[in-house]
Amino acid sequence: MGTTASKGVLYDENGKQIFEIGVPYPLIQTKVGQAEEDPEVIFDAVQQIIYKLSKNADGKIMAISWSSQMHSLIGLDENKNLLTNSITWADNRAEEIVAGAKESGLGKIIYQNTGMPIHPMAPVYKLMWLKEKNAQLYKQVKYWIGIKEYLIYRLTGELWMDIPMAAGSGMLDLKTLTWDNQILNKLELSIDQLPKLTKPTEIISNLSDEYRRKLNLSSNTLIVIGASDGYLSTIGVGVLSKSDFALNVGTSGAVRTLVTQPIIDKKARYFCYPADKKSYLVGGPVNNGGIAFEWARKTIFDADETAEDFLNIAQSVPAGSGGLIFHPYLGGERAPIWNANSKASFIGLTRNHTKPQMARSVLEGIVFNLFEASHAITENIGRPRAIKVTGGFIRSEFVRQMLANVFNIPMVAMKNSQSGTLAAMFLARLALGMNKELSEINNFITEEKVYFPDSKEVKIYQEIIPIYQEIEHEINQSYEKITAFQNRHPDLFKA
Amino acid sequence: MGTTASKGVLYDENGKQIFEIGVPYPLIQTKVGQAEEDPEVIFDAVQQIIYKLSKNADGKIMAISWSSQMHSLIGLDENKNLLTNSITWADNRAEEIVAGAKESGLGKIIYQNTGMPIHPMAPVYKLMWLKEKNAQLYKQVKYWIGIKEYLIYRLTGELWMDIPMAAGSGMLDLKTLTWDNQILNKLELSIDQLPKLTKPTEIISNLSDEYRRKLNLSSNTLIVIGASDGYLSTIGVGVLSKSDFALNVGTSGAVRTLVTQPIIDKKARYFCYPADKKSYLVGGPVNNGGIAFEWARKTIFDADETAEDFLNIAQSVPAGSGGLIFHPYLGGERAPIWNANSKASFIGLTRNHTKPQMARSVLEGIVFNLFEASHAITENIGRPRAIKVTGGFIRSEFVRQMLANVFNIPMVAMKNSQSGTLAAMFLARLALGMNKELSEINNFITEEKVYFPDSKEVKIYQEIIPIYQEIEHEINQSYEKITAFQNRHPDLFKA
Ligand SMILES: Nc1ncnc2c1ncn2[C@@H]1O[C@H](COP(=O)(O)OP(=O)(O)OP(=O)(O)O)[C@@H](O)[C@H]1O
Ligand SMILES: Nc1ncnc2c1ncn2[C@@H]1O[C@H](COP(=O)(O)OP(=O)(O)O)[C@@H](O)[C@H]1O
Repeated sequence: MGTTASKGVLYDENGKQIFEIGVPYPLIQTKVGQAEEDPEVIFDAVQQIIYKLSKNADGKIMAISWSSQMHSLIGLDENKNLLTNSITWADNRAEEIVAGAKESGLGKIIYQNTGMPIHPMAPVYKLMWLKEKNAQLYKQVKYWIGIKEYLIYRLTGELWMDIPMAAGSGMLDLKTLTWDNQILNKLELSIDQLPKLTKPTEIISNLSDEYRRKLNLSSNTLIVIGASDGYLSTIGVGVLSKSDFALNVGTSGAVRTLVTQPIIDKKARYFCYPADKKSYLVGGPVNNGGIAFEWARKTIFDADETAEDFLNIAQSVPAGSGGLIFHPYLGGERAPIWNANSKASFIGLTRNHTKPQMARSVLEGIVFNLFEASHAITENIGRPRAIKVTGGFIRSEFVRQMLANVFNIPMVAMKNSQSGTLAAMFLARLALGMNKELSEINNFITEEKVYFPDSKEVKIYQEIIPIYQEIEHEINQSYEKITAFQNRHPDLFKA
Repeated sequence: MGTTASKGVLYDENGKQIFEIGVPYPLIQTKVGQAEEDPEVIFDAVQQIIYKLSKNADGKIMAISWSSQMHSLIGLDENKNLLTNSITWADNRAEEIVAGAKESGLGKIIYQNTGMPIHPMAPVYKLMWLKEKNAQLYKQVKYWIGIKEYLIYRLTGELWMDIPMAAGSGMLDLKTLTWDNQILNKLELSIDQLPKLTKPTEIISNLSDEYRRKLNLSSNTLIVIGASDGYLSTIGVGVLSKSDFALNVGTSGAVRTLVTQPIIDKKARYFCYPADKKSYLVGGPVNNGGIAFEWARKTIFDADETAEDFLNIAQSVPAGSGGLIFHPYLGGERAPIWNANSKASFIGLTRNHTKPQMARSVLEGIVFNLFEASHAITENIGRPRAIKVTGGFIRSEFVRQMLANVFNIPMVAMKNSQSGTLAAMFLARLALGMNKELSEINNFITEEKVYFPDSKEVKIYQEIIPIYQEIEHEINQSYEKITAFQNRHPDLFKA
């Protein structure tokens, strides 16, 4: 279940993908900062998907395993009826609460206890926000869950949550892997208001007969709880330890790896989410991936120019874009700078700069930012041997090679594009006893090509990245001022 | 005599323009930072022009009066033969010398004594540079003059320099209006190496018979020495006191006015050049006028989009460009920031920004910078009643109104486009006794239209200008770093 669509993938008993279907749904954004989804609409989409997949397998589905967006929040009443929409990770309305928590030190405590960065995406801050702004609703809600929990509840009548998903709530204790009492007290919540916790390979029994029939499932079909898309897309490219990183860059981006114990950052620049007691997902979610590329293509160039045109033009000028620097923060940024008010900029323009350098600087800026997000992690846990890359933004040889040169680390482009569903499928195999060890997931994963750093370009990027970073620090305070100006004059600035 | 061409204008005895002709010449730029011109080529151009004008008047030319580019430097040997090209204001090679003079405090002293900003355009710094880098040539040179002095010397055999022009050398004492001994000592120059000083209405006798014949001039034709284009284009729009400012924005720009005594700036942000003991030209020369507009038109848009297209698109979005800020420093900047390494930037981009806001922000950035240049002056001498505007950049109603709104001062668009030659002509009238008072120049000047500030937009600009300025201060140091990067990698950055 993604933010704009759900996708179902059917795998055969050998782990081979044989069918795939996606169903989109809208994001509800009628108020400033709002980004909600209707759980019923998603449940409908998921039912359609399961039905179609099952049809394709003549009803012989062994297991349904789940990969889902993180950080969603849904309130249910005592009869487990919906009292809210699903408030997604993209909802920013807890921003003021987060600012307060940053000031008061509470944000730091939450980060240290749970590995959750200080950001409005986290359910813990959304709960504080609802508690403050909508106390009546807050009192009415008996259960707080997320979208995956809701869907599984609808199918099974049970409220369960896997540990990797629970970690994204900002309420799971990093050390004990149980709900954090200190935080629950702060929220005036009791443990029975949250789902029971379990491991991603847990089989949730009790798939109701009603849905078994409705969805054309057999009496043997099992529900495996699965996990968060962040965790699954990491193990799904075979990144099982810190010797490799996983880098996905689609519309947004993320760099992630797994470590064997909780290692948090002094500056709270990355998340650290437990998967189990010996495995912690560390990583940085980056807003400005392909979405910044897309903006530049349409704005600096024209909407009718293709991505390939853009890449070809960018390639016509050398690394460093003649000293032109692009900060990609078009829509604020999470990792590595965690500033919702940050803005994009082109800095360093001279008369010799023309469109090709502007195009190249956009790509370089996006990649510098990904590098910074990764660097915050390597500073704490060391550099990986290689980085496994996936996503729409790294489709071209040019961008892949640029990544290798900027990171100064070999980049391994992966064949499997759907690492999240692949890993969810693999969890089902573990649950069913078809595989024994997590490492066996590598049998289902194929590498496409490796890109090694080119030392000449590495040198150039190592000169320009510090300038990129310094400028970002220098103008950081001005972002607030521009945002304040924009907020004072909404009439002057319509989308 | 301009930087890229000379222009001759024929006026009848009533001061009416009746004929005009221009002849272009090349800038010599074969070395980094070099910007020279061949004095002989310019002399040829000027001869062609005089000949054509005279033909048009059947040889009945009463006087030839001169307006010229400032800050040029030419070395002659003892026989007054050329030893150098004309090193123009655009030549940057004295930059290191200037950096040293800034450090040592010498720059400040020169500014205080002469009103000359601390910048490589000034002949005083070019002389220091030649003295250091080319001591042999420096010793060989017997006379140091500028291009206007050279041309008049060729026609008359005399070496004279008018006071407003001499002021642009950085060697004229602000108080005494004589060559500054302290500076001459520093340069190891004696006064007889520099031209004799005189007032702009001086008649230089001795126009040689050779050139009288060659140029088809009558025996009555007089040579009036004239003045610098900066001074002449100011009085040429009728700005005779600080109650009005003159703002010209063509390729580059300048804001100027006249005060009755030397008033210099603590931060040396503007020049203060004596015209006579009761009249001082203060002003700021701005590099990034229409040239920045031109760059944006070709780069952000396409070369085949016209200036009008650009203006129409920019006009389609409201004042403030949605908080997007453009610094126009594509080619470094003189007033108001005096930083040769400064660069241009777009700062504050969000996903809602598209081409129209980028276009508008370019215009606003150019105008904010002009405002800052003007503001440095008004801080010291007070605000003018109105500003008289001329030049290619202020051709449109839209830009004129934007100027009024940003400056919060009425803008008076002038009919006379050639204020410099008009004023030169008027000097001839004064020299010939056809007029008595400088104020009578107003009889030859016509206003086209007045633009009054719109209070709603004034308010918006007054919010955004401080942000524009703060960001400039914040990233100021990074300009050096980008420049150092570019200088280390000339191969990566060809024009
Ligand atoms: N050839 C290309 N080079 C670089 N970027 C591209 C190219 N083609 C498409 N993109 C960008 O890739 C993005 C889409 O990638 P992908 O399909 O992986 O994203 P997604 O699944 O929507 O994103 P996410 O993984 O963040 O949910 C778009 O933002 C688009 O601008
Ligand atoms: N309609 C317009 N609006 C704004 N700027 C313009 C327009 N047309 C031309 N320009 C700019 O005016 C400049 C030329 O102005 P002009 O006064 O002729 O210049 P110069 O300083 O070379 O004498 C060019 O840089 C050009 O970009």
